[in-house]
Order: sequence, then C-alpha cells, then structure tokens
Amino acid sequence: MRPSGRAADQLRTVVLEPDFSKHAEGSCLAKFGDTHVLCTASVDNSVPGFMRGSGRGWVTAEYGMLPRATHTRGGREAARGKQGGRTVEIQRLIGRSMRAVTDLTAFGERSIQIDCDVLQADGGTRTAAITGAYVALYQAFQFMQTAKAIKQIPLTDQVAAISAGIYKGEPVLDLDYDEDSSADADANFVLTGRGGIVEIQASAESEPYDRATFNKLLDLAEGGVSQLCRKQLQALGVGL
Amino acid sequence: MRPSGRAADQLRTVVLEPDFSKHAEGSCLAKFGDTHVLCTASVDNSVPGFMRGSGRGWVTAEYGMLPRATHTRGGREAARGKQGGRTVEIQRLIGRSMRAVTDLTAFGERSIQIDCDVLQADGGTRTAAITGAYVALYQAFQFMQTAKAIKQIPLTDQVAAISAGIYKGEPVLDLDYDEDSSADADANFVLTGRGGIVEIQASAESEPYDRATFNKLLDLAEGGVSQLCRKQLQALGVGL
Amino acid sequence: MRPSGRAADQLRTVVLEPDFSKHAEGSCLAKFGDTHVLCTASVDNSVPGFMRGSGRGWVTAEYGMLPRATHTRGGREAARGKQGGRTVEIQRLIGRSMRAVTDLTAFGERSIQIDCDVLQADGGTRTAAITGAYVALYQAFQFMQTAKAIKQIPLTDQVAAISAGIYKGEPVLDLDYDEDSSADADANFVLTGRGGIVEIQASAESEPYDRATFNKLLDLAEGGVSQLCRKQLQALGVGL
Amino acid sequence: MRPSGRAADQLRTVVLEPDFSKHAEGSCLAKFGDTHVLCTASVDNSVPGFMRGSGRGWVTAEYGMLPRATHTRGGREAARGKQGGRTVEIQRLIGRSMRAVTDLTAFGERSIQIDCDVLQADGGTRTAAITGAYVALYQAFQFMQTAKAIKQIPLTDQVAAISAGIYKGEPVLDLDYDEDSSADADANFVLTGRGGIVEIQASAESEPYDRATFNKLLDLAEGGVSQLCRKQLQALGVGL
Amino acid sequence: MRPSGRAADQLRTVVLEPDFSKHAEGSCLAKFGDTHVLCTASVDNSVPGFMRGSGRGWVTAEYGMLPRATHTRGGREAARGKQGGRTVEIQRLIGRSMRAVTDLTAFGERSIQIDCDVLQADGGTRTAAITGAYVALYQAFQFMQTAKAIKQIPLTDQVAAISAGIYKGEPVLDLDYDEDSSADADANFVLTGRGGIVEIQASAESEPYDRATFNKLLDLAEGGVSQLCRKQLQALGVGL
Amino acid sequence: MRPSGRAADQLRTVVLEPDFSKHAEGSCLAKFGDTHVLCTASVDNSVPGFMRGSGRGWVTAEYGMLPRATHTRGGREAARGKQGGRTVEIQRLIGRSMRAVTDLTAFGERSIQIDCDVLQADGGTRTAAITGAYVALYQAFQFMQTAKAIKQIPLTDQVAAISAGIYKGEPVLDLDYDEDSSADADANFVLTGRGGIVEIQASAESEPYDRATFNKLLDLAEGGVSQLCRKQLQALGVGL
Repeated sequence: MRPSGRAADQLRTVVLEPDFSKHAEGSCLAKFGDTHVLCTASVDNSVPGFMRGSGRGWVTAEYGMLPRATHTRGGREAARGKQGGRTVEIQRLIGRSMRAVTDLTAFGERSIQIDCDVLQADGGTRTAAITGAYVALYQAFQFMQTAKAIKQIPLTDQVAAISAGIYKGEPVLDLDYDEDSSADADANFVLTGRGGIVEIQASAESEPYDRATFNKLLDLAEGGVSQLCRKQLQALGVGL
Repeated sequence: MRPSGRAADQLRTVVLEPDFSKHAEGSCLAKFGDTHVLCTASVDNSVPGFMRGSGRGWVTAEYGMLPRATHTRGGREAARGKQGGRTVEIQRLIGRSMRAVTDLTAFGERSIQIDCDVLQADGGTRTAAITGAYVALYQAFQFMQTAKAIKQIPLTDQVAAISAGIYKGEPVLDLDYDEDSSADADANFVLTGRGGIVEIQASAESEPYDRATFNKLLDLAEGGVSQLCRKQLQALGVGL
Repeated sequence: MRPSGRAADQLRTVVLEPDFSKHAEGSCLAKFGDTHVLCTASVDNSVPGFMRGSGRGWVTAEYGMLPRATHTRGGREAARGKQGGRTVEIQRLIGRSMRAVTDLTAFGERSIQIDCDVLQADGGTRTAAITGAYVALYQAFQFMQTAKAIKQIPLTDQVAAISAGIYKGEPVLDLDYDEDSSADADANFVLTGRGGIVEIQASAESEPYDRATFNKLLDLAEGGVSQLCRKQLQALGVGL
Repeated sequence: MRPSGRAADQLRTVVLEPDFSKHAEGSCLAKFGDTHVLCTASVDNSVPGFMRGSGRGWVTAEYGMLPRATHTRGGREAARGKQGGRTVEIQRLIGRSMRAVTDLTAFGERSIQIDCDVLQADGGTRTAAITGAYVALYQAFQFMQTAKAIKQIPLTDQVAAISAGIYKGEPVLDLDYDEDSSADADANFVLTGRGGIVEIQASAESEPYDRATFNKLLDLAEGGVSQLCRKQLQALGVGL
Repeated sequence: MRPSGRAADQLRTVVLEPDFSKHAEGSCLAKFGDTHVLCTASVDNSVPGFMRGSGRGWVTAEYGMLPRATHTRGGREAARGKQGGRTVEIQRLIGRSMRAVTDLTAFGERSIQIDCDVLQADGGTRTAAITGAYVALYQAFQFMQTAKAIKQIPLTDQVAAISAGIYKGEPVLDLDYDEDSSADADANFVLTGRGGIVEIQASAESEPYDRATFNKLLDLAEGGVSQLCRKQLQALGVGL
Repeated sequence: MRPSGRAADQLRTVVLEPDFSKHAEGSCLAKFGDTHVLCTASVDNSVPGFMRGSGRGWVTAEYGMLPRATHTRGGREAARGKQGGRTVEIQRLIGRSMRAVTDLTAFGERSIQIDCDVLQADGGTRTAAITGAYVALYQAFQFMQTAKAIKQIPLTDQVAAISAGIYKGEPVLDLDYDEDSSADADANFVLTGRGGIVEIQASAESEPYDRATFNKLLDLAEGGVSQLCRKQLQALGVGL
C-alpha cells in the first residue's frame, strides 16, 4: 500500500558509511533510501566561554542542506545571511540528542562539533542526521582514545532516530518524501539503544492525534530504532 | 515536597485576563504563577506571498521576552540583530499549535498574527503563551464575526499547553523555574480540548525517559490541559 | 477644545507604579493615559570595555515597543534583524537623560542598564519612558545602597520628560496620539527637578516654529515636569 | 580665549563649493574650517512604496563618515554590517531639516536623495552637512526646473545649521573639535532663513543648562545661521 | 620531487562523475585527487529583476564549503550570517566563467543556478568547481533540450580551470594542498576548449612573478585544461 | 579613435595628490582623469588576533564608493548592511597588492589599514586605488620612521596598477567608463616597479582572449605602470 512498496514496519534501505571524510576525526555518510546526510565530528580542545573552568566538555551540532538537495532549489542560507527556523530547530535537536547519551564530565574541557549536511533529501533528514551523527561522535571519541586523551568512550548508550506516521489510515515507519506529503500524522522519535526516550517531536499541525495512535507510532519507532542501533554497531565494527 | 507547596497534579494559580490590550483585535495576559505572557492577535487582510490565490487563510506567531523578564538580564534580540534558537523554536511551536485547531479554509485570504511577549518569566513561558494565545485568537475571530467578515468562529477545538516533569522522583505538573532547574525529566504537551495530541516536546537532554514515565507525564498533562481549557472558556465568557 | 477634554496645561492621568517587576533591581510601569511603558533597571558589576580601568560607572538604555502596542501592528525588530532609526534615537535619548543626573564617579565600575518597553502606545512613549526610567534607576541605586555597595544615591537631581505642541492654534501640554497626529508643532523636553535643560528635541518637520512659540512650549513643559517630579517622589516614597 | 583665536560669535572659515560632483544633479562640498562634508542630491523619478499614489514627493538623507575622517580611524560601517546610532540620528536630522523647507506637494511623485559624506572631521559635521545639503537640494530642483519637470523651485525657505556651546564659561558659536571636547554645554540649531526653528538638539549629557544659557546659545545661533544663509545664496548665485 | 610523486605537468587523478544528484537538472561530482566538489545546475524559468523584459537568460553561481571539508573545521557561513570574502570571490569567478561560454540570448528569459559545494578540500577547489560546473551546466541545457524548451545547447565552447605554480623552483601543474602551502608562486587559469583565456588570477601575495615565469605557468595550464576538456566530454558522453 | 582622443598607449591625466588628509598618517588623492579615489593609511600598534605573537606586521585594505560617485546613485553599503561582492573583491586585491611589496617582518606587530574611498568614478577605480594606496602606505612608513618606530621603509619595491583592453579592435591602455562599456576585452594588471607581476585579473566575461591579445595588453600595462611609478616617486618627493 505504501508508494515505496515497503511493509508498514519496514525501514528504507539504510547504509551507514563510516570514515567518509578524510579530515574529520569522525564521519559517517548516513543514507536512508534517497536521503543522504554527511555527518562529521570535529574535536576542539576548548569549550565555549560559558563553560570554561567547569571541567566539563560539550557536544553541539549544526545542520545544513545543500541548496539543490531538494526537489526544487532552496535558497542558500549563507547567502541569505541567516539560518531558517527549521534549520535551527533541527540542529538543536541533534545537539540535545547527542548530549543525552554523552557523559560530559568524562573528557575534559573539550568540544565535539557535529556537522550534519544534507547532500540529498527525500524525507527524514533529521532522523538520518541523528543516526549518522552518533557514528561520527563515537569515532571522534575513538580518535581521542587512540590519542590517549581519554581512557574510555564516554557514551552511556546508543542513540538513533526514526519517524512514524499515519499514511492512508495505517501506521507506518520511516516516511519518505512522497508518504510524508500525504500523511495524516507524523512524529519523530529519538530513542536510545536501551529504549529510553530522548526526544519526541509529535507535531500535528494538520491533525491532532489521539493517544492510541500515538502509542502505535511509538511501537513502530521502537522497532525501527532497534534496527538502526544494530546498523550503527556494524558500521563502527564494535561488538553487539 | 514541591518548593511551591503544590500537590503533584496541581497547576500554579492561572489567570487568563482577556482584553488586556487597547488596540489588538484579540488579547490575553496569561499568568501561570509568576510567569506573565502578553498574547495579542492581530488581523491582517492579506496572506503571505506563498499563499496568495489559494483562498486560504494563515495563522502565525512570534515570541519574545523582555530583556529583564528573567532573573538576570538577557540581551535584547533586536539589539543583537537576530532571534535566538530558543525563540525560533517556541514561536514555531505556538504557530503550529494554533493552526492545528484552526480551519484555514474558513476565513478567506486573511492572516492572524499572534504575538506572545513574556513580561516576567518563572518557568513555563511557552505553555502560558499557547494557552493565552488561544484566547487572543478566539477574540480575533469574534472581532471578524462582529465585523461580518466571517459567519462562524473557524476553530475546530480548543488548544492549551502544560509541562510535566519528574521532580525528586515524583511526576509533577506545571514546573516553575525552581522545580525545572532541578528536575530529572521534563516535557511540554500541547493538547486539544477533546484530548488530541497537537505537540509533544519531550527533550530529555540530561536523562532519557522510559515509556512508563512518559505515560505518567502525559496523564498529568491531560488533567492540566483540561483545567486550562475551562479557564479559557471562562475568560472568553463562552458556554461550557 | 482638546479631544481629551483636558485643559491646555493639563497632563494626562499619570500613574507611576514602582516595583512592577519581580526580578529587576528597579522597575516602574509608567502610564501617561493609555501609553504604558515598562521600565526596568538592571545592575551589572562591570562596565563596557572602553571604560574599564576608568574607575567610573555607566548608565545606558534600550527601548522597544511590543509589535501590537500600536493601532496597527508594527514589525518585530528582533525578527527584522535590526532596530529602526526611531528606536535608536529614543534609546540614546533615554540614556543621555539618565546620565545627565547621575554622578558616574560615585558607584564604581558598575553599569545600570535601563530597559523601556512600550506595552501600549498612545503618544508620548519617550516622555513616559524617561519619567519612569528615573524611578527604576533610583530604585536600582537603593538596591545597591541596601547591599552596601554604595553609601549614597549618586543622583544629582531628578529628571523627567514631557511633550508640548500647538494644537488648533493653542499651545498644549502632553499630546496624546490623536492630538499629535494633527498638531501644527510638537517638541519634547527633558528637564531636571531644578528646571535645568537636559534635552530639547524640537523637530519641526512640517512647520518651523518661531521663537515666541517655542518659549510658550517650554513654559508648559516646565510646569508639566514639575508635576511629574512630584509623582516620581511619591512613587519612590522619598521626601519632597 | 578660544583655541582657534576666534571671537565668541565668529564662525570658522566657511566655504560652500557647489558643483563638486560630476555626476550628481546637485552637489556641494561644505567646509566649516577643517570639517569637510561632501553633499550630493540625487533625483529619482519614484517615491518609496508607502507614498505611491499619494501624488507627493519625498526628500530623504543618508550620512556617512570615511573611516579615517577622524583623528583615529573608526570602523567602516559597511564592513561592520550596520550603521551606528549616531549615524542614524544625524541622517534622520538632515532629512527632517530638508523636508521642513520643501513643499512636498509641488514636484510630483519624485524623490530627492541627499548624501552627506564626511571626508574630514573637526567638529560640527552635522551642521556642515545640513548647510551644504540645502545647496545640493536647491541645485537638484534647478536641474528639474531646467528639465521642465517643475516650474518653480519648491522650497519655502532656506535652512542651515550651527552649533553653540559654553566654553570656559563663555557662550561661543560653531565649536570645533578641540572646543567641543572641553565645552560645558553644547547645542545644535537648525533654523530657516526667516529665523524659524526647525530642529533644536540640546543634549546636555554632562551638564544641564539653565534657560538663560539656552537663550544665549540660541541668540548666537541665529546670528550664525543668518551668515550661513548668505553663503548659501552666494554659492548658488541666486539673488539676496 | 613533488610530494605527490607526480610529474611537473601531471594532473591529479581527475574523476568527473555526472548525474550525482537525484533532483538537479544537471550535476557532477568533480574529484581532483582528494578535492571533491559537488556541482549542480538548477533551471529556473525566470531571470533576476534587472533582466526582465530583456529576452535574455542568465547563468549565475554560488560556492560553499562544508565546515569540515578542511583540515581543521572552519565556521559555517550560514551560522555566521555572512559569506566570507574568499567565497564571494570564487562564486563570482565561477559565474563569469560559465557565462563566458554561454550564449545568453539563446534560451529565453531563464536562469541556470550553479551550486558548487566542496565536500572535501585538498587544494584547487575553485578549479575543480569550474571544471565540474561546466558538466552540470551542459546537462541542464540537455534537460531543457529534451523538454523542448531549446533546440540547441547554447554553449559556444567548453570551459575548464586549473592551477599552476612554482614549487621548489620548478613550474608544476595542479597544486594540491601540501604543494600550495609551500609554493613560491601560484596562479589559476580558466581557459576554453579552443584555448581562449577566460580568467587569469595570478595573485602573487608573497612573491611577484616575472613574465617568463608567468608564461611557463600558462603553458602548463594550457596542457592541463586540454586534458580536462577531454574528461568533460567523456563524462557527458558527447563526441570528441 | 578613442572617445577621449587619447593615443592607444596613453594614460589619462594622472594626479597623485599626497597629504590630502589632515588626520591620516599617510594619504593620497589619486585622480585618473575623472576617477578620484581618496586613499589613506592608518597605523595601528597591534595586529589581528590570528597574528599575535608572530612578531610580524600586517597590511590590509578596505574599499568603498560614495553612493553618488557613479552616474546613477548606488545604494549605500552601510545602509544595506553588507558589502557587495565587487567591493569585497577589490579590497582584497588592494590588500594583497600592498603586501606583495611589504616586508611584513620588518615593522613589528603593527598594522597598516589602507582605506580607498571613491569620491567620483569614471572607470578604473581599482587601479587608481592601488596606485594611490602605495603612496599613502609609503607615507605611513615615513611617519613611523620619523617616530623612530622603524629604521627603514620596509617596502621591497613599488607597486601600481592599470587596465588595458581591446576597444574597437585595438589594444588600448587605461580605459575610462565610456571605453570600458563597449570594450571587447579588458584586464587589470598590478605590477611592481621592477616589472614583477603581482596580480593579473583578466576577466573575459563576454569574450575569451587569445594569448597573443593578452600579451599585447600586458605590453601596454608594463608601459603604463612604469609611468605611474614615476608619478608615485614625484608625489612622495623621493629620488628616482
């Protein structure tokens, strides 16, 4: 019934390609079907001014989309001189999601800057970004471990994200652009490897949900994130 | 146990003061305890460029905080030359929340501009803003009805918002600044009068939730929004 | 003859409501009829870079207007990304007015930041802002005195402001929006309690004044400021 | 007694050099001693959006200062990305001053754009700018007259500006930078050829004036503007 | 002698990968060794305001670099709110280079927007961008031809770009980052398929060239561009 | 054959007027015919942050154009809030040109800020700016020498700039606005006194050059710069 022919609880083909970038301490090209997001993690041996002297580290994120990542060209934010509201929302979401699984007390006064840049968009860019950002972040900590800056990877859990929505009356997982455009309802879930809720963004602009529907979407998301977490471990080559 | 002495499911003293503004077509000063937000609704007989010719109307929102609404003075966004990320997130949330209960096809190519300005902040400014914005929006539609621009109020339901969180291990409703600062978890819920979910923003930066906890918070929020909806009707003087 | 029914030398109903804000060190809601301006004074234990090491303090001001303070909604300056020319002019005027009665050598390297935000506008927002700002500034110095940061209030005089103009051929005091819109001439006067001239802004865009007219306006203003200074003392509860 | 050796009521050497610019419809290099301001007037056959259809014209002004016009280099406003508060104040003052003597109903829906750029500064840049801008404006109207766009010069009077202040206890006219830096009081006066008051900016930041002092400054200014108006007529080569 | 082991007149491994983007009318991933630039061409059925009614089309370009394309992370231009000087220079260069071989009178009032985004940088990003942009531009015209909007590809010649410099006393072609960092001289050449000079940017900040040296660099560039033009034809699959 | 009546290899009347500015450490009004550029050099006893501790100095430049320097008024960049792409290109070119002949290791951690402001434009503003900037820079170093901050002028050569182009089939030197508007080709050359190439900007937007043509233009430019260098020495009054 889905335009893509997928089962209701079926993810798009997900590929997490680590080490995509020559220069970054951590990087991952996250592909959710035709949505391709390049995620890098950059280590900086300092923290923002408001944290200096705290002994704690920081993880933050920026998000961008190439102007022609989309069906029709969007304006370049650098040329317009400001980031749009959607960009700001998404990059704050990515940053919070990473910090939710990072022990900020365990790597000194250092920052990890995540950059998620959408090379091609087909729905679900924020979920691909978060899922790939975790891989890049993990690699950046591995880099610091190899450099003997830290002893252990200061991550308390995995984190990944997926969308779910109501398409033609059916709850479905991981909406692509076509499905998203005509869905009755839609939500984004950021969950941990152990099933904890990091972020829920249920934004029912056109159609308020009832609680039962919401619960079905969350059921689907739990299944999807579970699969994504396995993909992350495979990409990182670390034990299950 | 709460610093405020409130019961776990008890709102702060909520006052919705309609007609606060002499000039605006609709207005409400929403007080949730010491959090005071001035909400106005302004009618404009045009729509943004991208909607012209669609025959549909638009509802949008902007949010701001007076520099000294807070414990320590924050910079003035107009002076800095840009709105912060938090501001952008909140004003988009308010706009989506209002549109979720508005029939955009039923008042022609007109816009309602909501402005929510925090005069004093003590936690929960976005929930007070949404709750008061609904009153201002309703009044603006009453104004249009009186002016014979529309026959019926084009609102499909009420909408209000409240926070809930885990404070010292207990789920509690409507956190004030002191509680919010030391809460283990926190979420904002925008729900309709009939209980539909409009927006959920569960942002567990420091502490992922489990699903059971989340459900308790949603239970509390349903109770809180129900009370807020009654307050809205009283403020508007329309039948229960 | 005035639309408001006031005598030529009669102020609107002026209310100076001190301690309006829970958080600010000093605050005053200044009402000149339907013009309502919230003035706060915030103490900062540092000075701008160009004054560091001078041993002197600083007083500065910012001014803003809520988008729907006016008859028709104005754009939000924070959203447009810059403060308008009128805003800049007024906030510089407020700052200079406060500094004219402050002994900047008498409270160390500290800053007082005045914020004047117009909640509702009906003409004369700058004069209400200055008159209320003085009350907030005085309170901030009282706060510092109580905290034993200073021994005496470092104010050399009171300062208040009022407009006067020619309406239908008659010199009148304190123009409201209706009067201002059809006045032949208009000027703003910032005067001290002892009658010193702090600022005169006679801006005759449409109609140059002669000197005799100007003198009549100044006569009116001297009477008006005298009354405003008494109101300030009453609001502050300090002896006449 | 003045550092410049001038008498109390003596202007600096004033030179108004018309036709300074090859391209502009009107132009004047206004020199008040070492203060040199290039004023141009550009004719545009349209008006700003808010005036379209009104049948009226518009005169507006912009002001700038070359970065090294001053003793120490100031930042370039174009590079900083915004005009400073002082710039905004001055350019609004110039625009209002020109409009005060222009019949906006008498030259159709056209705009005159005045540009005043300070090539070298030594005090009194705004008064030189206004005095020179009038010459450029007059020439622009002459250009329109020659082009048969208008029959008569739509100026109702001349306008010029001068400062006066209290230097070492004496009222003096036309302060240069050295005098201004150590003056006790200072005011700028924009007056018409017939003695009308267009703008008074008495900004007593450090020292409130009494009214008698103010009157002495205005006396001096009246004499100064009278001389400047003669200089304008000479520069324009039009009859006295 | 070159760090890369290449001969003096040897390009890096150049790969021009057409059709890289799913959405754009034309696209090419241009790889010059480790420098990877994604070039897209977007067709817009309108022209900028200043060209409306001219009957002519327009080709323009924007350039960007992902924050972590470089050895150390650079700031994101969208976040800083402005494009840097280097970005502006390069994007103007790309636009001029494309227009130099495009017959702007031959495809109606349409625009082609070129976007060149550096995914990974290792020297020579502008030359890779121009070389790839030509492929994307050609494809966009093919798209228009297929859509029967134009009959012929309105390109008068090919265009490609390459750098040459003096490394350890020897003229060498196509400098990578390591070579560029320690080169004595460096220049960028944009040439057409028939050898015409489109742009020369010889910027000898540290070391003025003599004319003989310049001629050697131009000799090398002519050879390099000749090879790049063959690569373009192969990528496009059009006859030699 | 040239509209100006000049021979093909003839410069416009060039006047380099040193000491034009009262305040700047070095200054020169550079006139190339009706193109007038005011160049100042300001000494600052510090360097930008990225150079602190390097022991080296810095020379940088900014460029601007008065709004009515041109045939029709251009917008003021300070009012628009950003510098245009052409401005950025030119000011970077001026800075690189000055640094190419300056020994940055020989005057300590000091900066020279060059400002080139076009008072009147008639083609070739960047070449006049560079030629005049050298004079201002030289004077600034003389100022430092007089102040005993340096022993020798740390300039390794002279630098000047000129344009050449193909006008009606003939190579001609130093194009004015009329010639430039209808030239078939055009290039700017920045050369040293000893003939070294500092910058070549051959931007053939409308018409690619062949190499023979380019060589003719460079021949002309070498002759022109040679004359300009003599003018610089005369202006500076230093030996040939």
